[in-house]
Amino acid sequence: MTVELPATQRALIFDTFNGPLEVRHIPVPEPADDELLVKIEYSGICHSDLHVWLGDLASMSVCPLVGGHEGAGTVLRVGKNVTGWQLGDKAGVKLMNFNCLNCEYCKKGHEPLCHHIQNYGFDRSGTFQEYLTIRGVDAAKIDKKTDLASAAPILCAGVTVYKALKESNVAPGQIIVLTGAGGGLGSLAIQYANAMGMRVVAMDHGSKEEHCKKLGAEWFVDAFNTPDVIKHITDLTEGGPHGVINFAVAKIAMEQAVQYVRKRGTVVFVGLPKDSKVTIDTTPFIFNAITIKGSIVGSRLDVDEAMEFVTRGIVKVPIELVRLEDVPDVYQRMLDGKITSRAVVDFSL
Amino acid sequence: MTVELPATQRALIFDTFNGPLEVRHIPVPEPADDELLVKIEYSGICHSDLHVWLGDLASMSVCPLVGGHEGAGTVLRVGKNVTGWQLGDKAGVKLMNFNCLNCEYCKKGHEPLCHHIQNYGFDRSGTFQEYLTIRGVDAAKIDKKTDLASAAPILCAGVTVYKALKESNVAPGQIIVLTGAGGGLGSLAIQYANAMGMRVVAMDHGSKEEHCKKLGAEWFVDAFNTPDVIKHITDLTEGGPHGVINFAVAKIAMEQAVQYVRKRGTVVFVGLPKDSKVTIDTTPFIFNAITIKGSIVGSRLDVDEAMEFVTRGIVKVPIELVRLEDVPDVYQRMLDGKITSRAVVDFSL
Amino acid sequence: MTVELPATQRALIFDTFNGPLEVRHIPVPEPADDELLVKIEYSGICHSDLHVWLGDLASMSVCPLVGGHEGAGTVLRVGKNVTGWQLGDKAGVKLMNFNCLNCEYCKKGHEPLCHHIQNYGFDRSGTFQEYLTIRGVDAAKIDKKTDLASAAPILCAGVTVYKALKESNVAPGQIIVLTGAGGGLGSLAIQYANAMGMRVVAMDHGSKEEHCKKLGAEWFVDAFNTPDVIKHITDLTEGGPHGVINFAVAKIAMEQAVQYVRKRGTVVFVGLPKDSKVTIDTTPFIFNAITIKGSIVGSRLDVDEAMEFVTRGIVKVPIELVRLEDVPDVYQRMLDGKITSRAVVDFSL
Amino acid sequence: MTVELPATQRALIFDTFNGPLEVRHIPVPEPADDELLVKIEYSGICHSDLHVWLGDLASMSVCPLVGGHEGAGTVLRVGKNVTGWQLGDKAGVKLMNFNCLNCEYCKKGHEPLCHHIQNYGFDRSGTFQEYLTIRGVDAAKIDKKTDLASAAPILCAGVTVYKALKESNVAPGQIIVLTGAGGGLGSLAIQYANAMGMRVVAMDHGSKEEHCKKLGAEWFVDAFNTPDVIKHITDLTEGGPHGVINFAVAKIAMEQAVQYVRKRGTVVFVGLPKDSKVTIDTTPFIFNAITIKGSIVGSRLDVDEAMEFVTRGIVKVPIELVRLEDVPDVYQRMLDGKITSRAVVDFSL
Repeated sequence: MTVELPATQRALIFDTFNGPLEVRHIPVPEPADDELLVKIEYSGICHSDLHVWLGDLASMSVCPLVGGHEGAGTVLRVGKNVTGWQLGDKAGVKLMNFNCLNCEYCKKGHEPLCHHIQNYGFDRSGTFQEYLTIRGVDAAKIDKKTDLASAAPILCAGVTVYKALKESNVAPGQIIVLTGAGGGLGSLAIQYANAMGMRVVAMDHGSKEEHCKKLGAEWFVDAFNTPDVIKHITDLTEGGPHGVINFAVAKIAMEQAVQYVRKRGTVVFVGLPKDSKVTIDTTPFIFNAITIKGSIVGSRLDVDEAMEFVTRGIVKVPIELVRLEDVPDVYQRMLDGKITSRAVVDFSL
Repeated sequence: MTVELPATQRALIFDTFNGPLEVRHIPVPEPADDELLVKIEYSGICHSDLHVWLGDLASMSVCPLVGGHEGAGTVLRVGKNVTGWQLGDKAGVKLMNFNCLNCEYCKKGHEPLCHHIQNYGFDRSGTFQEYLTIRGVDAAKIDKKTDLASAAPILCAGVTVYKALKESNVAPGQIIVLTGAGGGLGSLAIQYANAMGMRVVAMDHGSKEEHCKKLGAEWFVDAFNTPDVIKHITDLTEGGPHGVINFAVAKIAMEQAVQYVRKRGTVVFVGLPKDSKVTIDTTPFIFNAITIKGSIVGSRLDVDEAMEFVTRGIVKVPIELVRLEDVPDVYQRMLDGKITSRAVVDFSL
Repeated sequence: MTVELPATQRALIFDTFNGPLEVRHIPVPEPADDELLVKIEYSGICHSDLHVWLGDLASMSVCPLVGGHEGAGTVLRVGKNVTGWQLGDKAGVKLMNFNCLNCEYCKKGHEPLCHHIQNYGFDRSGTFQEYLTIRGVDAAKIDKKTDLASAAPILCAGVTVYKALKESNVAPGQIIVLTGAGGGLGSLAIQYANAMGMRVVAMDHGSKEEHCKKLGAEWFVDAFNTPDVIKHITDLTEGGPHGVINFAVAKIAMEQAVQYVRKRGTVVFVGLPKDSKVTIDTTPFIFNAITIKGSIVGSRLDVDEAMEFVTRGIVKVPIELVRLEDVPDVYQRMLDGKITSRAVVDFSL
Repeated sequence: MTVELPATQRALIFDTFNGPLEVRHIPVPEPADDELLVKIEYSGICHSDLHVWLGDLASMSVCPLVGGHEGAGTVLRVGKNVTGWQLGDKAGVKLMNFNCLNCEYCKKGHEPLCHHIQNYGFDRSGTFQEYLTIRGVDAAKIDKKTDLASAAPILCAGVTVYKALKESNVAPGQIIVLTGAGGGLGSLAIQYANAMGMRVVAMDHGSKEEHCKKLGAEWFVDAFNTPDVIKHITDLTEGGPHGVINFAVAKIAMEQAVQYVRKRGTVVFVGLPKDSKVTIDTTPFIFNAITIKGSIVGSRLDVDEAMEFVTRGIVKVPIELVRLEDVPDVYQRMLDGKITSRAVVDFSL
């Protein structure tokens, strides 16, 4: 029961960084023997899509380019060497692909560290198009019960959050502080942390308190209007949280975390500060036996695990559906700081 | 077969920081019901003994004071509530004692993080005396086969090194870089690392190469005369070492480690830089998923494990035996940078 | 504000195994310097209390004896050497005490494996009395917010369940099978597993289905009326559960678990089969890289962690309050299989 | 610099189980786009090769068949889609291949548990031929410094041993018992265990004592002439070994291990007893919190790690070089129990 394919498809393209973003018709690609052809039905719009277009990540990206790296859709063609996929399966398309599956990192299940990685929407055409080819080993299997629009942002935002939580080593019943908890990543993180049994301290601007508590935060700390944040959090958590995840990009937040985290606790850095420098006070760091970790996206396994929480309805993704033509407008709203939920392109609109 | 005890004993005392260091006769203490009385036969002389005397650690220490926190000797009295100890047993006396055994850190086997810790030779009389009382639960059991003079420095230097190696998560067959490898801690670390199956890259001043290789380093890197240390180590180790332990206190060494450590590798900070600040470049840190950990001394279990390698003769401690009266002279040689092996007080001299 | 103590107290005593159980007046004990005196307010009644009285555990118990090992109450006296406890604190009394805190197991936080253990209600007077002395390092700290009647059964039943779940290595989002899920331990286990993010398959007699699902089981398997249990569970869980905990004492349940657990999964044995023998089919065991573990009660840390879920109201303990005089009747109902929730002595009744 | 290939090659073939083993000329295969063509220079002869030929493993094997699954040689052709391989590289060929790299087990780095596995020398032509094709992702990279004849047995025997040691969770400085220590697997295990910092108790027939000690065993236990093995090992190791690996196939050895292993220790089963049944005494198992694990071969990463110890000369493989024509004779000597070192086919003889 093979679906007929059109010769051309719609795609959002820019020819130069920060240049016009236009919907054009381009050919529908042919999958290679080890590839799937996926009809993209939804594609999340990530802040890094904006930064790629602006040229902020020029060293990692090319143009002309079709952006997008949070796609979800249906498998319409299966290359003859592909195993484990069937026509009609639901598939997810994430940022990192073409890992070699044969280096030490791939063999350990740390594919995002592979030297062969190519990034959809960065240095390869991404998910802001209707039909995409992807290797069978790169695509994420999505259960048919899963809401596809919600699945899309899990491919990047969701897995980033979930992986950082795993890296924190915070056990069920223990406490985690999430900085930038009211933002896109943070809003997912509160829910994932709860689903993993963690108790959440949300930190953000005071206006986000209600939002964070509704999502499941047990405590809220106003990051901007608390006189002594270090003492406050230490007292609140009776000795400090067992882990901290930094979604905020403010240097001060990252440096404070090392001061208030519990002895032998873990601070995970996800957000990058502007000049890429953070200064650690080594005295508490060494005397309290603190751990600091960098975390970035996740492996294929992490994607599968992160997705499963959405399939079960445990994690809800706050989304706003938009048309492919609306992406430039979404970018503008991102620049204006007016995006409150995840914008997701719905190709049927 | 109880040994008679004298009424007084010799002890090295100072009344004011940086004041005269004198051998005086003081009373032999009585052990409480939960304590042992240990006849100290050997006591290592640690750099921090010097710093306590100088007053550099005044916030953590008192005076008048008997310094020393690396003692080894024989149990001459056993308090009536003590379990697990017999007259004639060999016992070790380490820095940290009086942990409560009842807080979350103690219950997890992280006694050095307990709030109740008191430090022998810092805020309590230490091992530069002939007879010392110590709780049965604080003293380290030393096998009768163990060379007691070698055992002494393990109680602080040895366990610090051993614990840092455990914290590095470097597996047998993997590679570890040791900065400051030619010094006192480093010289022990090379041997412990080998005993744990690790492959060692020793970094230090070029003059230490032969010393480090003799102790078991597979590679040596001149920390001061290598044009591009980061590239050099990355090439040498085909992608970077799996772990790094910083015994050096130079800030540059700590900052470089984050750059050359293997993806998903671990950097352990042991040495404290002068102003207690280290600046991390968060881009490689996050993109390469690096871990940084602070490590300080070790638990009672770590001491037991570290000692066992010495008992078996796998780790050899390079020591120089001195008299109690020689401690001031040893301090002067430390200040002059002329100490090459561990000076250990032999109370029989 | 020290409370006056009576000279005598009520205690439930038996002089011979399976002999009369009588409430008698005995002296109120004096705490030693390292002990607390706890006014017991509630004491859970455990199946092993019954077995001790019957003489089934004669090798581990003495008589005359005051049974009971799940006590919760208030600290009325604090020995002068005790740290970390104050008058009026709430304290829990568990089975295992007098661990040495100085052997390799104690140093690792595995106190239940210490050779020095003495068991309240087995070889020492237990919690079926109004006033009990206990070492400060043995008593469990209970938050004042915690419902004391619910706290009591956590000291043995709760921590046994919680520890077994930790030992299973089942991660949040993964699946665990609980055999005997409808019983006392199982009913707590379903809730703890959920609180730890696990998905639960409850197995028991068909009559327990509603009970188990109400407590949070996602699936229920009738252990007695499912034609091919191994195939059924494998299919239900798409490849087998990641872990299994055996609360059932039937040998068949334990042997099946090795067959249906997921590849690289873990089976934890808690319940002891009658003749203490279980036969493993080594072919699936080796080819599927299965792990089997024995688990028994938990450490002091495990008790604290298990208690915290009750304090927060995440885990609810189904209890039935009875008088001290009712214990013999409760034993009879246990023998008749008529106990459905945890019977807890309320000393105020 | 591409080497010319002959049209045909020599291969050792049998047409029926337990039928004649003949060296015949068959075509040299063509590698597919994702495959390498490897000139096999050495091939280890494993006991399971014998059992495949005998038909003992008929359910997992086919015929006619070319056996062998421990091959090492040189890459002569590289398929156009292969990454990470170059002409002239040294490659190893192991038992399990064609894992999908896309299931949960492959994504976790547990490829031997993948459902898609095909086994060279069992259900696919193996390494008893001069030229073999293998997917680039399946072949093991061998350093050019490595002795190829020694490398061959690592692909199955070596990695099996190394993996089991990793699974034992025995840390450097801790004690492991190896049953069947004097055999082929055991002889490698003694060396690997030492290289990983473990202290070894070798168990076997008394005649193997000198052999085991020469290889690095610290203690030897005569498995057949020790009156009370459980007490003897418990005493020798002061409480039991931290881990046990069962290379022996005797049921009694496996059952004893659960009795003498240290509390919280791990017993790894590698050898399969005849009827595939082992009976566990659950009382010590549960009360001592023992872990039992099944272990079988290893992942691609395990192979790389195991090989590296041979490359460095830390593990020496006792081999006997034979001609391809000698394989039937080697099988006969295996049946007669007369093989003492690993027989390896040298294709240049």
